[in-house]
Amino acid sequence: MSEIDVPESHPRYESLLTRHRIEAGVEKGITSKQGLIAEGRGEAFDYLLGEQTTQSADRAERAAAALLLLADHPVLSVNGNAAALVPGEMIELASVVGADIEVNLFNRTDERMQAIVEHLREHDAAEAGVEIKGLTADARIPGLDHERAKVDADGIGSADVVLVPLEDGDRAEALAEMGKREIVIDLNPLSRSAQTATVPIIDNILRAVPNITEHARTLQEASREKLETIVREFDRERALAAAEDAIRSGTLE
Amino acid sequence: MSEIDVPESHPRYESLLTRHRIEAGVEKGITSKQGLIAEGRGEAFDYLLGEQTTQSADRAERAAAALLLLADHPVLSVNGNAAALVPGEMIELASVVGADIEVNLFNRTDERMQAIVEHLREHDAAEAGVEIKGLTADARIPGLDHERAKVDADGIGSADVVLVPLEDGDRAEALAEMGKREIVIDLNPLSRSAQTATVPIIDNILRAVPNITEHARTLQEASREKLETIVREFDRERALAAAEDAIRSGTLE
Repeated sequence: MSEIDVPESHPRYESLLTRHRIEAGVEKGITSKQGLIAEGRGEAFDYLLGEQTTQSADRAERAAAALLLLADHPVLSVNGNAAALVPGEMIELASVVGADIEVNLFNRTDERMQAIVEHLREHDAAEAGVEIKGLTADARIPGLDHERAKVDADGIGSADVVLVPLEDGDRAEALAEMGKREIVIDLNPLSRSAQTATVPIIDNILRAVPNITEHARTLQEASREKLETIVREFDRERALAAAEDAIRSGTLE
Repeated sequence: MSEIDVPESHPRYESLLTRHRIEAGVEKGITSKQGLIAEGRGEAFDYLLGEQTTQSADRAERAAAALLLLADHPVLSVNGNAAALVPGEMIELASVVGADIEVNLFNRTDERMQAIVEHLREHDAAEAGVEIKGLTADARIPGLDHERAKVDADGIGSADVVLVPLEDGDRAEALAEMGKREIVIDLNPLSRSAQTATVPIIDNILRAVPNITEHARTLQEASREKLETIVREFDRERALAAAEDAIRSGTLE
């Protein structure tokens, strides 16, 4: 039994867990109105994908793990939905690849920032040795309006690889313009975020994050050459096309 | 210029209007958390449909108009999202086909019922000669749990044709079991509601409702034979297959 009192073998387990976590996120002031609508959009795409990780998405998740392990300063960007849906999973991934977590909100308010930082701390961030950034906000992403541009100078400001799940297109493009390599998790392969990413992962965040962590554990002792080969051989155009094909035709590559 | 201060010719007009009405619905206590998630699911399907009424959906909307005009006692069922998104449009349709409107909520509370009835009255229901039902709740739909089963005896309870937009599957199935003919508006052709309907309309409610009204105006003077022919010739299986094909392949039939 798990946090939702339903066995993991239940056919709707993932869906029930998602619903439970999103509802809890609303109660805690973490999930916004826009976040709820975005969750619904994701549900529809996931439904068409067959609610499973495609082989193509699994390859992208392996490439993401390699890219995070190669990075000098990887940062996992966490917004309201990511915090509500995968708080513990994000901390585990950060811990395994040696990344910081930075909270970044499309609709930034001090209250929501604090609620999310608190939520991540409750999921044992400190115990896992993971720093939660985002409250300092002493740097800016060029080309974005004031509130959305805020980042920490020693966080996303100086990161070379950023994981941006469920990100809005403007911000994903602006981060790419700064020369950062981006891993995007998004269920819509046609979204600007997915189109912008070095490694687009078209998968449900609840499946994607633990799977990146699992690949990172497997690759932990791999040589730089091996990791670089995995990243180089990853074909983003093919991954996006495979995802669109899976959604449109219902066949899983 | 319209209620959102954007010209109707704006390429994102419909999307901006939807967002505006949904936000207003939340402020007024009409739109629920589940309603926001459902809105997002609809957005994703509509996006894949190309955000336009397919020829197949237009045929379904014409059949719906004919069915409403043939009915002895047609009722338009309105839930939170329908009330937020198309309050005036629903009243206009009810007025043209001589239907009642009945408010029915998946998560029924007195507060939300009152807020929705009030919202519909503000959109000149009385002036249009349309009765708003749902508060009496003196009848039950068999096979549903207590709160969701409530209907008005002189509303849905005794209706022969019911328009149920954005309805949950259990309720759509239970209404069909009662022998009522259902018109369902739903962007997911695979949903149980759509699969259950006499006339499934796979289209955005913002486009579908005014289009049914337009067809009803055109057909107002048509003979019963002509209306019956339109309903008889409507092929629900073909409509569902065409919609799924449009979503999957991006081609519009």
